[in-house]
Amino acid sequence: MRAFADAGRSLAHATLPRVKLRELGEFGLIERIARAAARRRGTRGVVLGIGDDAALLRLRAGEQVAVSTDACFEGVHFRLRNESPRTLGRRALVANLSDLAAMGARPLGCLLALALPPGLLVRTADALVAGLLDEAARHGCPLVGGNLSRASEISLTITVIGAVARGRGLRRGAARVGDRLFVTGTLGGAALERARAERGRGRIRHVPVPRLRAGRALATFAGRVACIDVSDGLDADLAHLLAGRALGAEIDSSRLPVPPGFRAACKRSRLDPEALARGGGEDYELLFTLGPAAPSAARLARRLGVRVTEIGRVVRRAPASPAPAHRGWRHF
Amino acid sequence: MRAFADAGRSLAHATLPRVKLRELGEFGLIERIARAAARRRGTRGVVLGIGDDAALLRLRAGEQVAVSTDACFEGVHFRLRNESPRTLGRRALVANLSDLAAMGARPLGCLLALALPPGLLVRTADALVAGLLDEAARHGCPLVGGNLSRASEISLTITVIGAVARGRGLRRGAARVGDRLFVTGTLGGAALERARAERGRGRIRHVPVPRLRAGRALATFAGRVACIDVSDGLDADLAHLLAGRALGAEIDSSRLPVPPGFRAACKRSRLDPEALARGGGEDYELLFTLGPAAPSAARLARRLGVRVTEIGRVVRRAPASPAPAHRGWRHF
Repeated sequence: MRAFADAGRSLAHATLPRVKLRELGEFGLIERIARAAARRRGTRGVVLGIGDDAALLRLRAGEQVAVSTDACFEGVHFRLRNESPRTLGRRALVANLSDLAAMGARPLGCLLALALPPGLLVRTADALVAGLLDEAARHGCPLVGGNLSRASEISLTITVIGAVARGRGLRRGAARVGDRLFVTGTLGGAALERARAERGRGRIRHVPVPRLRAGRALATFAGRVACIDVSDGLDADLAHLLAGRALGAEIDSSRLPVPPGFRAACKRSRLDPEALARGGGEDYELLFTLGPAAPSAARLARRLGVRVTEIGRVVRRAPASPAPAHRGWRHF
Repeated sequence: MRAFADAGRSLAHATLPRVKLRELGEFGLIERIARAAARRRGTRGVVLGIGDDAALLRLRAGEQVAVSTDACFEGVHFRLRNESPRTLGRRALVANLSDLAAMGARPLGCLLALALPPGLLVRTADALVAGLLDEAARHGCPLVGGNLSRASEISLTITVIGAVARGRGLRRGAARVGDRLFVTGTLGGAALERARAERGRGRIRHVPVPRLRAGRALATFAGRVACIDVSDGLDADLAHLLAGRALGAEIDSSRLPVPPGFRAACKRSRLDPEALARGGGEDYELLFTLGPAAPSAARLARRLGVRVTEIGRVVRRAPASPAPAHRGWRHF
């Protein structure tokens, strides 16, 4: 196991267009990653970044640590024929940052455990890491450590570390009957692009925006808030949001926010727009409930800095009915 | 990507001796892990464990966060024919805890990103997780979240989160010429057992003890301390400890601490004891330097609660000589 800390020092810095990882060597790649990360460094929360047994991060007074980890594997979560390695690196970090957004946390730093086949081109690995570092810089979440391993499949396992004021973390499970249900941004766009890419029509280019600002704004709300990010799809994540309680939701499908031109594009590709908007994942919007006296969607949008749509409300679920997760959450 | 948070609820709790993961399903295994973890829960640092978008952990006033991630892949870092899944789960967490020990940090919690082939027996996955939870409970580092993915190879990517008093983290790179070099415990035992297992003679059973108490004691030292854990082997990790500076070390090989019966066992297996003690990794002892006025090894042992041996001292390395990492650190 090679921590990023344990870099060698023998490496040129040059672009290596045709070199494979097995020729560069493990420490060579680690050094390239550490150097690329060092060029981007720079948030105040990092006491000690790449280069030691652990990274050290600083909280502000009264804050708690928020941590989450997420893995993506080639052939399961992505295919490099469907997107550039740079896009993949960006999307992989966004998936993790979205978990911090859904807790109302601000990012402090991230760790990358990267597993790569020895026959991979160095430039592919460089592009993956560059994509991740792009998003890391954009959202103030510097790469502070990681691990590199040989493996037969490409995988990126990312851990994000954030901070949230004590008692202010946005939890699932706070919803009650009568609460109003909101979602940021639009749904279905990522699923449409993926479905088209799977059919050989274009590649995945869109990188969702993790709703960090919106999550932090929600965390300052005085009232009851339950929040999750839409990573698996609206229906599945709604089930997670309400899990463990005898709650269901009434969704007004006609109000589901979709991207411009979405319905026409679905029609051209013979895809069901509602199925994509409800079942497709990876939009990384925030799905949240607020009490009945919550502000209007328009006022929330101003406060959260992003489009907000009210899509339904929380209702009682009959005790005998199956839990939403087990019936696909299609009809309730 | 499935966070541990997103468990289903349809599962029996029973032992499943012949069931494969593809029959149990992803959410089924997640629920088993979440339940097993919940039975062990219980340190004061956990504000929110498995079951949300991120875990929340609490620091004490004046502490900083220490984080580290480490991956182990089947065929690269372990083989299940050489050890039980329970031992593997234990060793995987120890490797991570050792990084916290080497920073002088106390553990707060851990995250497990587990990747498993669908054809694996559920009981193998259960045993892996049980091993990890055993060590987690022993060292006060509860499992607070994670991720489960299908993959063609078994891998465990663990992130540990710890806390260390501000300015007290044990860094590498603090060593100076004339400093004295110490190591806790014994070296070579893990490499001997692994070498024997690779030859089909016995399995790996020994689980190293992460030197958390010793690390925390070192972090309270008033004087200069540089510290690393011996994961790659004494020579390699010594190179990492001194990396980036024109430093070398003189090691007195005759003083290297080895386990009881080590030389005889090496002889029986026709293995070179010095090569194992210097080159073998995974003993997870702490290797550290202290200034010339440091206490004796015997006094340090009392303070650190573990055997301590003085094995050499830090010397100047001629600027023209190659960095230790690149010549195998065998002769200096």
